[in-house]
Amino acid sequence: MPPPGARTWSITVGGMRTVLVIGIGAGDPDHLTLQAVDALRRAGVFFVIDKGGDKDDLLALRTEILRRHRPDGDFRLVPATDPPRDRGELADADYRDVVVDWQDRRAALYRTMLTDELPDGATGAFLVWGDPSLYDGTLRLLDRVLDGMPDRADWRVESIAGISSVAALAAAHRLILNRVGRPVLITTGRRIEGGLPDDADDVVVMLDGRTAFATLPPEQSKDIHIYWGAYLGTSYELLVSGPLDEVCDEIVRVREDARGRRGWIMDTYLLRRGEGQR
Amino acid sequence: MPPPGARTWSITVGGMRTVLVIGIGAGDPDHLTLQAVDALRRAGVFFVIDKGGDKDDLLALRTEILRRHRPDGDFRLVPATDPPRDRGELADADYRDVVVDWQDRRAALYRTMLTDELPDGATGAFLVWGDPSLYDGTLRLLDRVLDGMPDRADWRVESIAGISSVAALAAAHRLILNRVGRPVLITTGRRIEGGLPDDADDVVVMLDGRTAFATLPPEQSKDIHIYWGAYLGTSYELLVSGPLDEVCDEIVRVREDARGRRGWIMDTYLLRRGEGQR
Ligand SMILES: C[S@@+](CC[C@H](N)C(=O)[O-])C[C@H]1O[C@@H](n2cnc3c(N)ncnc32)[C@H](O)[C@@H]1O
Ligand SMILES: C[S@@+](CC[C@H](N)C(=O)[O-])C[C@H]1O[C@@H](n2cnc3c(N)ncnc32)[C@H](O)[C@@H]1O
Repeated sequence: MPPPGARTWSITVGGMRTVLVIGIGAGDPDHLTLQAVDALRRAGVFFVIDKGGDKDDLLALRTEILRRHRPDGDFRLVPATDPPRDRGELADADYRDVVVDWQDRRAALYRTMLTDELPDGATGAFLVWGDPSLYDGTLRLLDRVLDGMPDRADWRVESIAGISSVAALAAAHRLILNRVGRPVLITTGRRIEGGLPDDADDVVVMLDGRTAFATLPPEQSKDIHIYWGAYLGTSYELLVSGPLDEVCDEIVRVREDARGRRGWIMDTYLLRRGEGQR
Repeated sequence: MPPPGARTWSITVGGMRTVLVIGIGAGDPDHLTLQAVDALRRAGVFFVIDKGGDKDDLLALRTEILRRHRPDGDFRLVPATDPPRDRGELADADYRDVVVDWQDRRAALYRTMLTDELPDGATGAFLVWGDPSLYDGTLRLLDRVLDGMPDRADWRVESIAGISSVAALAAAHRLILNRVGRPVLITTGRRIEGGLPDDADDVVVMLDGRTAFATLPPEQSKDIHIYWGAYLGTSYELLVSGPLDEVCDEIVRVREDARGRRGWIMDTYLLRRGEGQR
């Protein structure tokens, strides 16, 4: 029994489990930061999310990164397959239910996987495209997974920043994204379909499957400069820039061609409105 | 004389001069990417912009980075001091003239420096805080400098992406900056003084010398969560998060204290409005 007044400590048997969410950059294996390299070396288990439709080129980057920075091979690869999603034709409210339900099933699946595959005191890692803080769901999923755990306090999540496709786009075009003292909006293709928001003059667009830049009204397009990049950071990177009304068709064509050839495409662009391109 | 129809080539005697603008991350020397390390190794000259008021801690990071990655010491450091700026009390139009004039003098100074200090075929580098594409003027200045050069075509500028303070903030708080399918606005303290734009619910604020988060109207603050970080990436990093109306005073106090102690502060924060913190 401790003497009166002595502090007692709660002791964690086996220690914390750490989950690293590591940003690996947007296509160039040299986008990796020294911090990320260090994190890669700390992990004993790598969880590999397989979305089914995953592109070989993207998997190749992850493999290349592990080959280079973990030549010891002293780790386990654990494939994480998402539960099938019940799509089909549903009313909006039902659709929301299905999504929530799917997310619950997904969280349960990951919970089991993490508990089974990550021993006490061990460190696991997810390799995340670009930066974990931009249009990536891994941190959100982990939150949901861990919040349901009785030993939540024994789990630690660490996020390691990476070069996002936004930073890669800017570097490729030697751009400063903001104009002096002005804001930058980062948004999705879907949100600019039919027109840019009134007060947004420097807009970075991601997740655009349908060339939303080609749907802007002519009175907007004529005043916009576009800086477009696909497969940024790779050896097959594509860049086009110019006044939107002059290069729009070219980008649509280049994009279609490239997608046809490689079987997939990822592109990001800056739309810059009004005076002065910088 | 070339035979008719033969192509002629213009030959560059001595070769290109390359200027690298290298993002060094936002405070942690391990934010450096492998690409940046490689770029650091290619440079023979480092141009060090001295803004006069530069903080020792910031210079220290640059020194540390060179010490670590260029132990050979086989490079020159060229200090670049900006021309004095004529401040004083001026009407808006006059003020604009003064700024333009100052920028011209500054460009002329850098032009001379680059021409004098960077021999034909050589590679020089600017080490830029965070990412060169966010609220940094180096690329803009280089554009202005080089555009005035008769041998413009013989100069090459390369931008190397870095971890921005935005990415560092997100990593420290394990944040995803956007909510699902929604945009993120990156802006300045000045622009949110008195209120957030109506359509912006996830707003990252930089360059805020005057705690603009404390000037939002109460009907906005009560619905906002703030994720605040200062000296991100350093060993003296500070983090506070919570409902804005609950932690606002604390942040103002912590910020004042820290600034008093270190003599300077750099902080960045996310304001997240409405339902769901993620
Ligand atoms: C699911 S989001 C992931 C973003 C990632 N977390 C980041 O920081 O870049 C995928 C979108 O990122 C953009 N993207 C990612 N990598 C890219 C690349 N190498 N070139 C161009 N765009 C890219 C595209 O807009 C794509 O639709
Ligand atoms: C002139 S801007 C340079 C930004 C830089 N290019 C970047 O990518 O982060 C300076 C502003 O960046 C933010 N900042 C830079 N480093 C920071 C750090 N370590 N911690 C917090 N904020 C930082 C602050 O908002 C500061 O006012």
